[in-house]
Amino acid sequence: MAQKNTQSTNMRLRLPLLCIILEVILIILFGTLVEYNDDTHAMLWNENRTDSATRNDHENEFYYRYPSFQDVHVMIFVGFGFLMTFLQRYGFSSVGFNFLIAAFSLQWATLMQGFFHGLHHGKIHVGVTSMINADFCTGSVLISFGAVLGKTSPVQLLVMAIFEVTLFAVNEFILLSILGINDAGGSMTIHTFGAYFGLMVTRVLYRPNLDKSKHRNSSVYHSDLFAMIGTIYLWMFWPSFNSAITNYGDPQHRTAMNTYYSLAACTLATFAFSALVNPEGKLDMVHIQNAALAGGVAVGTAGEMMLTAFGAMIVGFLAGTISVLGYKYLTPVLESKLKIQDTCGIHNLHGMPGVLGAVVGAVTAALASPDVYGHGLQRVFADVETGKWNPQSRGGFQAISLAVTLGMALFGGLITGFILKLPIYGAPPDTHCFEDGLYWEVPGEEEGHQELYEVATSNEVEKLSS
Amino acid sequence: MAQKNTQSTNMRLRLPLLCIILEVILIILFGTLVEYNDDTHAMLWNENRTDSATRNDHENEFYYRYPSFQDVHVMIFVGFGFLMTFLQRYGFSSVGFNFLIAAFSLQWATLMQGFFHGLHHGKIHVGVTSMINADFCTGSVLISFGAVLGKTSPVQLLVMAIFEVTLFAVNEFILLSILGINDAGGSMTIHTFGAYFGLMVTRVLYRPNLDKSKHRNSSVYHSDLFAMIGTIYLWMFWPSFNSAITNYGDPQHRTAMNTYYSLAACTLATFAFSALVNPEGKLDMVHIQNAALAGGVAVGTAGEMMLTAFGAMIVGFLAGTISVLGYKYLTPVLESKLKIQDTCGIHNLHGMPGVLGAVVGAVTAALASPDVYGHGLQRVFADVETGKWNPQSRGGFQAISLAVTLGMALFGGLITGFILKLPIYGAPPDTHCFEDGLYWEVPGEEEGHQELYEVATSNEVEKLSS
Amino acid sequence: MAQKNTQSTNMRLRLPLLCIILEVILIILFGTLVEYNDDTHAMLWNENRTDSATRNDHENEFYYRYPSFQDVHVMIFVGFGFLMTFLQRYGFSSVGFNFLIAAFSLQWATLMQGFFHGLHHGKIHVGVTSMINADFCTGSVLISFGAVLGKTSPVQLLVMAIFEVTLFAVNEFILLSILGINDAGGSMTIHTFGAYFGLMVTRVLYRPNLDKSKHRNSSVYHSDLFAMIGTIYLWMFWPSFNSAITNYGDPQHRTAMNTYYSLAACTLATFAFSALVNPEGKLDMVHIQNAALAGGVAVGTAGEMMLTAFGAMIVGFLAGTISVLGYKYLTPVLESKLKIQDTCGIHNLHGMPGVLGAVVGAVTAALASPDVYGHGLQRVFADVETGKWNPQSRGGFQAISLAVTLGMALFGGLITGFILKLPIYGAPPDTHCFEDGLYWEVPGEEEGHQELYEVATSNEVEKLSS
Repeated sequence: MAQKNTQSTNMRLRLPLLCIILEVILIILFGTLVEYNDDTHAMLWNENRTDSATRNDHENEFYYRYPSFQDVHVMIFVGFGFLMTFLQRYGFSSVGFNFLIAAFSLQWATLMQGFFHGLHHGKIHVGVTSMINADFCTGSVLISFGAVLGKTSPVQLLVMAIFEVTLFAVNEFILLSILGINDAGGSMTIHTFGAYFGLMVTRVLYRPNLDKSKHRNSSVYHSDLFAMIGTIYLWMFWPSFNSAITNYGDPQHRTAMNTYYSLAACTLATFAFSALVNPEGKLDMVHIQNAALAGGVAVGTAGEMMLTAFGAMIVGFLAGTISVLGYKYLTPVLESKLKIQDTCGIHNLHGMPGVLGAVVGAVTAALASPDVYGHGLQRVFADVETGKWNPQSRGGFQAISLAVTLGMALFGGLITGFILKLPIYGAPPDTHCFEDGLYWEVPGEEEGHQELYEVATSNEVEKLSS
Repeated sequence: MAQKNTQSTNMRLRLPLLCIILEVILIILFGTLVEYNDDTHAMLWNENRTDSATRNDHENEFYYRYPSFQDVHVMIFVGFGFLMTFLQRYGFSSVGFNFLIAAFSLQWATLMQGFFHGLHHGKIHVGVTSMINADFCTGSVLISFGAVLGKTSPVQLLVMAIFEVTLFAVNEFILLSILGINDAGGSMTIHTFGAYFGLMVTRVLYRPNLDKSKHRNSSVYHSDLFAMIGTIYLWMFWPSFNSAITNYGDPQHRTAMNTYYSLAACTLATFAFSALVNPEGKLDMVHIQNAALAGGVAVGTAGEMMLTAFGAMIVGFLAGTISVLGYKYLTPVLESKLKIQDTCGIHNLHGMPGVLGAVVGAVTAALASPDVYGHGLQRVFADVETGKWNPQSRGGFQAISLAVTLGMALFGGLITGFILKLPIYGAPPDTHCFEDGLYWEVPGEEEGHQELYEVATSNEVEKLSS
Repeated sequence: MAQKNTQSTNMRLRLPLLCIILEVILIILFGTLVEYNDDTHAMLWNENRTDSATRNDHENEFYYRYPSFQDVHVMIFVGFGFLMTFLQRYGFSSVGFNFLIAAFSLQWATLMQGFFHGLHHGKIHVGVTSMINADFCTGSVLISFGAVLGKTSPVQLLVMAIFEVTLFAVNEFILLSILGINDAGGSMTIHTFGAYFGLMVTRVLYRPNLDKSKHRNSSVYHSDLFAMIGTIYLWMFWPSFNSAITNYGDPQHRTAMNTYYSLAACTLATFAFSALVNPEGKLDMVHIQNAALAGGVAVGTAGEMMLTAFGAMIVGFLAGTISVLGYKYLTPVLESKLKIQDTCGIHNLHGMPGVLGAVVGAVTAALASPDVYGHGLQRVFADVETGKWNPQSRGGFQAISLAVTLGMALFGGLITGFILKLPIYGAPPDTHCFEDGLYWEVPGEEEGHQELYEVATSNEVEKLSS
């Protein structure tokens, strides 16, 4: 790692080259592979409509999914972006790199997911559902970003995104298309995958001398408030996230509601345990910013099932508890014993709650029956019609999926970590982690500010306005 | 009050105990009382559908109400939360306690409102409409929070929420179910109730020595910008708030539009009077942050009626005017003469505009007639069909409802205030009101920041990136 | 210009008088001219419904357009408002004046657009579509505001809005009603018009001694983060902006998706060229905050057409590139050679990308054919049915529209600029541009803050919580 301290962090050629090459490749692939789907194509949509125009337009998937899409979009760009601004000197990078890798990932994900999930005569069909799925995949990359936050160059992050999006699509294909399991809100595909992938990457990129940047690896008063913008948006829109691609009607409605109650219960658990683990009974912003969201992660799989508000609240309460305890007791151990430096504590917000969500999903699926779901059963569990239906085996497949996801994530993270370790990406030296100044033009701060304030409140101003 | 200064503010046991006990009670009650309604239940929704699946799913109430729900949700968590961050040293508590008591209140409100408004064979049925109503009730608690902001512990706030939610549900039951009046946007049920409840609580909790914390009871430059995030979100989404639970179709559409115009007119009045009441003609952020919203409050009752954009604009203009004048001239008098210490000035934003809204609603209802509404009359005034319809008596019932609401709020606030006065909740001493440090781990501020900045701009960084 | 330095900036009478007079005029005109449309009127909506109530309510335009409206609303008030908070001492004015002139403009635009676009028996009919159009027109005014930001009094801004809204409505009428062209997302009507109008105004208001305020015409660390809130919201919701008033069904769906891909590609171009044009390869927040949005502007016309994701990405990539290069190389030349002081660089974000969007729209329209659009052709190009359809002439009309828009904007800006130059509006002196203190009560800043912090972390607090 010693050579990193002498490695140039200048992005003048590396970043433009990578961005332009990637975008050109994306444009070429989109030009050859991507087509409008039935609901976005002028000819196809108007052919398919069975009746007069105004009558059927409301059946366009746009009206069922676009409000949810926009909520998911806000979570990806504002939620993840601002959640990570808690670091005192890394706000530009948090929001900015989040913006960059999300904008890249959603394009790359459209191709990878389209390739695995449904080529139509060799073409990828796009519409609002593919946009949501691309945003979901992007979310997974941003979770991993949380683990390496402050310790990576934008070039490293883009390279990570290339590999992670690809593996995400493979894992999603295995789970949803081969094993045929349920995971609408992505407890496994998004959260577990993104968390363990990121943890393995940060393990491989372990920096023994990171304490040289320790003074920057913390928040200040205002940065914690900016981070709360991220937290609150994630919390509010999580019901939309989990329900965004469930079936129309009762599943979408039920998923949103289950998530709402899970999050509410989770929030009370978070405040309770945050005060309890502090010697003076003081609340810790790190817990409130993160653990209060674990309830959304933990109903990502079971949310569309007949979990009931009661069940959702139990799951949310457990998730919040686990998450706070993880921040307090597990994160320090992970760093000291396993050499996993997890900047945002994604293991506590996405890792453990994701695994919990997978388990809850497996149990809830195993308990499903036509007595409870009636004719709605096939709208939640897709293979009922095909005769493959059996609650117990369904529960088993859900559990297998968790194992597959963990394996894919850890293996993928390992490989990707070693690729990111090459000394060619302009990674920050140990002395300058968590520092915007390396990659951004940073304006002068408060000195000028105070001086200006004095000018502003001088007599001259008073005179002018009199 | 003297003993308060020696009362421990340590939350280590009190807050966790209260949160955990409350959440356990909530979970048990949800387990025994709450069921999915027809639109969220897998069996019931798929039984009830009369036709092929895709055709009828759009009639699920989810698609009519969920976008409005999310806007209301943003108002509750971002709007109220950030509006109160204007205090220089109370940002964590403003957003954080807002988050905590809202997460509790929406669960408790689901039970209380369900209990009063519609038990189905002893069960409470939940769906997106109950979620909106729970958020509405939560809004009322957050209004009261504004009056006691900075002077209460989180335990006090939770206790206040327990009582206020309960009384809110009783008052709402009397107004909507017994008197059968209209109040879709809650000028009475939400704003008037929340304001006068909170004012009475803060009156009972009067602190004669609050000026010991005077230096903290004000804003700084950045905190005012954070507060504007809250203001603007409340302003933008108020049309969704007022229309969220009106009938489908024209009432929902009309309510949103009336609110939009009322707020626009209110904003011009706010800027006009804010400059006018200042000797140097300078605008005051307190007015802009608060009074510009009064137009939304004041059309909370009449918004769904045929108020016309013209009428809405007059109401909005009056509301903005009253509100600014209240901040300037009434708030100081309330404190000095009536011993009402109203931190956020909720009397000006929710109290007076709420009463104005109730009066406007009574007048507009009294003027309603089939000549204007046609067949749409019964969609606004529910009891037209039942033969009870009479515009004048309807107007009278609306006026009676205002009196009931004021009585319930003042009486409820009085009782609750005395309960909150018990010296067991860890309330802050007079010397440490408006201070996050009592209940939160507060990170170091600018000193470290500036030092870091110097590091960041040092030659070393320049060298690295060359 | 010398007399400006002695001109009083006191707003005590000017601002209230103007606001109150304008609002009274608006209220009178609304009272005499504005009516509910078929979808908001209780009688008309319930007459027009052909079937049982619940079946047809979903066809109310509210459900097709209101989620888009709210996204547009967020862009206008949060997006534009916070984007301009990048200035270190002008945050109150950026958000506050944005709020004021938007609230005025949307009312005035309702009247002007209603007057030109569809009087029904002498009355203006309003509903959610007119609300979106009013917000669009407001957006144009806010673009111009960006050019004169920091150099104008609120009275000047309101006067500018009066004229700009009026001319916007005339130009829109010529383009959409007379020439019958397409411009759903407003590349021409909103962005090109707003940009060149604003540039001409700021040219006429040229201040040779503006460098006296140079030290305030820049950002600080936190103000750049506030500005990113604006950027990200504009970026996320631009798909809603461009699709808000397209036809229902496939056009709305397709427009949102084309915009999504254009913006993603634009973001990669922005990061690439921002690093490339900096000697040290450092990213510049000005570029990220602004140029990343150019992709939304540039598909404002062609977005609803069969542009394909491929085409959208090429356009977005070009727009981002042009915009960054404009900020780097053109803006300084515009100021030094043409005396155009463009505070926010609107020429780079709205001007050039708007013209690009107009050209792309003309080309895409010229290439349209029934082979590609099928029966959907008439849903995009309105005059197909009328027999006037001819792709080439359509493309020609689109190009003519760009010329008309440029002419109207430059001429209108010239006249308006001279009107704004009259020394009666309380414009700031050259020495106090970019300074909130002139028009706002500005609270004390960090000094008090730090002192408080010391109090907060003192032993006393520690003792209290033990």
